[in-house]
Amino acid sequence: MDVEHLPTPALVVDLDALADNLEKMADRWPGDTLRTHVKAFKSTALAEHIASFTGYRGFCCATAKEVRGLATAGLGRDLLLANAVVDVDVLRTLARLDEARVTIAVDSPETIAAAATAGLREVLIDVNVGLPRCGCAPEDAGPLADQARAVGLEVRGVMGYEGHLMTEADDRAGKVAEAMAILRNAHDVVGGPVISGGGTGTWDINETVTELQAGSYTLMDTDYSKAGVPFRQALHAVATVVSVNRAGGYAVADAGLKAFGMDHGLPTVVGYRIWYCSDEHTTFGPGADGA
Amino acid sequence: MDVEHLPTPALVVDLDALADNLEKMADRWPGDTLRTHVKAFKSTALAEHIASFTGYRGFCCATAKEVRGLATAGLGRDLLLANAVVDVDVLRTLARLDEARVTIAVDSPETIAAAATAGLREVLIDVNVGLPRCGCAPEDAGPLADQARAVGLEVRGVMGYEGHLMTEADDRAGKVAEAMAILRNAHDVVGGPVISGGGTGTWDINETVTELQAGSYTLMDTDYSKAGVPFRQALHAVATVVSVNRAGGYAVADAGLKAFGMDHGLPTVVGYRIWYCSDEHTTFGPGADGA
Repeated sequence: MDVEHLPTPALVVDLDALADNLEKMADRWPGDTLRTHVKAFKSTALAEHIASFTGYRGFCCATAKEVRGLATAGLGRDLLLANAVVDVDVLRTLARLDEARVTIAVDSPETIAAAATAGLREVLIDVNVGLPRCGCAPEDAGPLADQARAVGLEVRGVMGYEGHLMTEADDRAGKVAEAMAILRNAHDVVGGPVISGGGTGTWDINETVTELQAGSYTLMDTDYSKAGVPFRQALHAVATVVSVNRAGGYAVADAGLKAFGMDHGLPTVVGYRIWYCSDEHTTFGPGADGA
Repeated sequence: MDVEHLPTPALVVDLDALADNLEKMADRWPGDTLRTHVKAFKSTALAEHIASFTGYRGFCCATAKEVRGLATAGLGRDLLLANAVVDVDVLRTLARLDEARVTIAVDSPETIAAAATAGLREVLIDVNVGLPRCGCAPEDAGPLADQARAVGLEVRGVMGYEGHLMTEADDRAGKVAEAMAILRNAHDVVGGPVISGGGTGTWDINETVTELQAGSYTLMDTDYSKAGVPFRQALHAVATVVSVNRAGGYAVADAGLKAFGMDHGLPTVVGYRIWYCSDEHTTFGPGADGA
């Protein structure tokens, strides 16, 4: 079906831009050095496309549901749930997945106990490298690895996400090096083959990780583009103009708050100025590019 | 299942608050004077609950999908699609619904032609009463009604949504009266039994409409609450704290941008201050109530 005949609002992927992005990333992070993060796009179809395009076998997930989705789609060769989970019932659904290798991040005695109780077998020690989110204090990484091994878990290594630096304008490379020095020091104590971390914003400057957890590079977004990351926007929302007010100088399209991610503000219509979005509408008119 | 045993993130409805809201609204807008708008909650289960609780038969929709959902759930007694649609294929799916009465808003020759071509039978003339969105110029309402009747459509009346005044702080009642005077004048020309409009923010001051298009009153949200509307918040997101950083003074819960509507900013955690939300996490700590 042609794009112009799709019922709207519709999300469309620019396959040429996607291919450029996948190739660019594969040049720098070939084979299993890239662990594409699916949290941004949450699509097993896109994950399959990436795996077949580049041969990547490992994926990174933010939720248990993403892990189950990829495993069910036959993409369970090496799945990392890069988040702390304390719900044993949820973790049991992952331990029971057929033909899936599931590794989970742990950052506390509670998350280690939950993983072991649920029957999961492999973990990474999640180390806080500066982002105020999950991750243990660096000095706790070694003791937590000991605790995990004591209850029978295989510790594959460490992870640490420098998410606070993804769009840092001032000396991004220097600050990433500092954050990754924390992760390397923790890894020296923890051991194991894996140092997992990084993202689209540090894809060209992270010299530490053995696998990069990048996801936004696939489809990108208008906010990341502003940060100067050299991947192309491959995802667009298609809408139909359903009403025009010539006297008022605006038009109304049939896509709104419920169709867009609004966490970075208004969407962008190239060549126009957006007045505002409501649930199912965007009012826009002539003016400067974007919001 | 107890709330504390739900897999998280989970959306939960406070049924007592919902009942209070439905009763309060039914006191002021009984029977078919209320046309509950489903765009806010998009749940046929909740629509069924409302219909059985109060006996309302009519619903207001923002999308064709909502119309199809309600009709399929047996709630098609009187459905208004209160938006302009120009896609004839989409409108045909509504004209073919069994045992559903579907009325659609029109505001242009194009939307009238689309409705007639698709085989829909009833329309309201959507009149712009000040909100920069859909709706014809007031002076065009009569000619558009004539056009609609000329192609065999039944014109049930007019609609006009004073959405720009829902949370107006300065003389809301006076401004609503001005907007509704525009709608009454248009109705004088158009005719028909229906004057549809209004919303949760004008439920107590709109003296014009024959049916109120309110939806937010059911579950409410933190933003509407700030505007002094006397309905209770009945919808909450339940999350689990999965990581605690005592030295940093924060905790991390497993609900984030993908779980919340972010169009009015950060969510609220009563008694705490939210630092920020990421895709699947909220980092929060001690501090003032809300964001």
